[in-house]
Amino acid sequence: MTTEQERLLLRDTIEAGFRQAAFVNDVGITLADCGPGWCESTLAITPRHLQHGGIVHAGVQATIADHTAGAAASTILEAGQHVVTAEFKINLLRAVRSERLRCRADVLKSGRAIIVVAADVFADVHGESVLVSRLNATMSVLDLA
Amino acid sequence: MTTEQERLLLRDTIEAGFRQAAFVNDVGITLADCGPGWCESTLAITPRHLQHGGIVHAGVQATIADHTAGAAASTILEAGQHVVTAEFKINLLRAVRSERLRCRADVLKSGRAIIVVAADVFADVHGESVLVSRLNATMSVLDLA
Amino acid sequence: MTTEQERLLLRDTIEAGFRQAAFVNDVGITLADCGPGWCESTLAITPRHLQHGGIVHAGVQATIADHTAGAAASTILEAGQHVVTAEFKINLLRAVRSERLRCRADVLKSGRAIIVVAADVFADVHGESVLVSRLNATMSVLDLA
Amino acid sequence: MTTEQERLLLRDTIEAGFRQAAFVNDVGITLADCGPGWCESTLAITPRHLQHGGIVHAGVQATIADHTAGAAASTILEAGQHVVTAEFKINLLRAVRSERLRCRADVLKSGRAIIVVAADVFADVHGESVLVSRLNATMSVLDLA
Repeated sequence: MTTEQERLLLRDTIEAGFRQAAFVNDVGITLADCGPGWCESTLAITPRHLQHGGIVHAGVQATIADHTAGAAASTILEAGQHVVTAEFKINLLRAVRSERLRCRADVLKSGRAIIVVAADVFADVHGESVLVSRLNATMSVLDLA
Repeated sequence: MTTEQERLLLRDTIEAGFRQAAFVNDVGITLADCGPGWCESTLAITPRHLQHGGIVHAGVQATIADHTAGAAASTILEAGQHVVTAEFKINLLRAVRSERLRCRADVLKSGRAIIVVAADVFADVHGESVLVSRLNATMSVLDLA
Repeated sequence: MTTEQERLLLRDTIEAGFRQAAFVNDVGITLADCGPGWCESTLAITPRHLQHGGIVHAGVQATIADHTAGAAASTILEAGQHVVTAEFKINLLRAVRSERLRCRADVLKSGRAIIVVAADVFADVHGESVLVSRLNATMSVLDLA
Repeated sequence: MTTEQERLLLRDTIEAGFRQAAFVNDVGITLADCGPGWCESTLAITPRHLQHGGIVHAGVQATIADHTAGAAASTILEAGQHVVTAEFKINLLRAVRSERLRCRADVLKSGRAIIVVAADVFADVHGESVLVSRLNATMSVLDLA
């Protein structure tokens, strides 16, 4: 395969991971772009994503950050492997009102059994990108039967 | 007020916190019971809560655990205060298929500015309650303007 | 072997793990007791363990909690395996002055590749045992070459 | 004061924070440099810092990362304030043998009551700087009586 074919194949695989995860689909999170070791996603904020006071619920931020982190880990797996989240920590840094969230996840360390990923969630606020939360996850690498 | 009146008033306040949080409502999480320093919630699992493979998405588990932890912290606030999540860590311990999640959150330490809460998520599996994830959160106490 | 022989052998193995870890030895942390899935340790506080203000440094609390958690995980390993800490989170709940710390660690979930352990650190304060910090760790299981 | 005087005064204050913390002193961690919102420290590794197998103990890495994070937070405090660690998470990414650790901590978000700090620990390995662990801490801001 050419490098371009590999890029498209990887993107298709990762996109399927977003589409086939019912909850991620239901919340409205979609793949923006990806490459080996990283992934970006996006979410258009609607009233159902909020908590009291009009700010985006921590659960929404955790969902986009966790799933994008898992997708970033998936970009470096071998055939027949998949990942599940073992644990993550998320710091909610700012309570913002925004119409769009964007998440960028990067693999920090890749091992045989676990992959560590860092993910940042940004909000579009008046045209500027503001860091609203930071997640750090340990993903378990599993071999499919 | 009598103790019973206080109990009902607390429950009304905490229940409003579940109902008025749009995302929690949308996901389908409801208050089960609460008292000073603790809160329990429940969620009937439907296909939209799943990820590939039919297990409950980490984002769903994080959402019920975080919101129930915030509610537990809310039970010990003074009038005019509210809490927001500063950070949490969640360990996903088991990948289970289940029709119902239950969450129990307890305040571990209460301070003037932060409240630390532990929350466990259980799944009903063939009539047995199985621990599936454990969250540990720091809540910031804010004074309403 | 009898059950009693097994118990003594396990204790010898875990005690060696405390003695042979130079930093743990240097700080003064010693094994109190252990069994399958749990471990307890103790530390006599001296001036060198403190930070400004006379309270026990977070690094000391992290060291006793992490090492005792690793020891608890070690109690359930098969021959030829060992564990290393992949990550931990610790909540420092109270700033106390005390002459002795005690730590209790319990395995929360055991998998083939990772073991999740919870550890609580208690301080003796005027004869009472007070919870001062709570750690939650992911241990990686490694096969010795 | 001139900017240069302010810089020296800040450095003196932060250096005192390293020197007066008995455990940090005992372990051998020293200030390398600091400025508003950041701090760097260093530690010459000796046999007492190790665990079995000759790698640096997680407790040592946690101690340098936590203390340097606290120092970074201290650089932006007002007079009469100090910080204590509320919680931290640390990911141990690589088991390396090294003669020197270096830590860099940066304030991620500063609030009235809490300050969030990220800290990376690097090891000198054959002249190259390798990321060995990453910490993320919540510091509580306290007003001195």
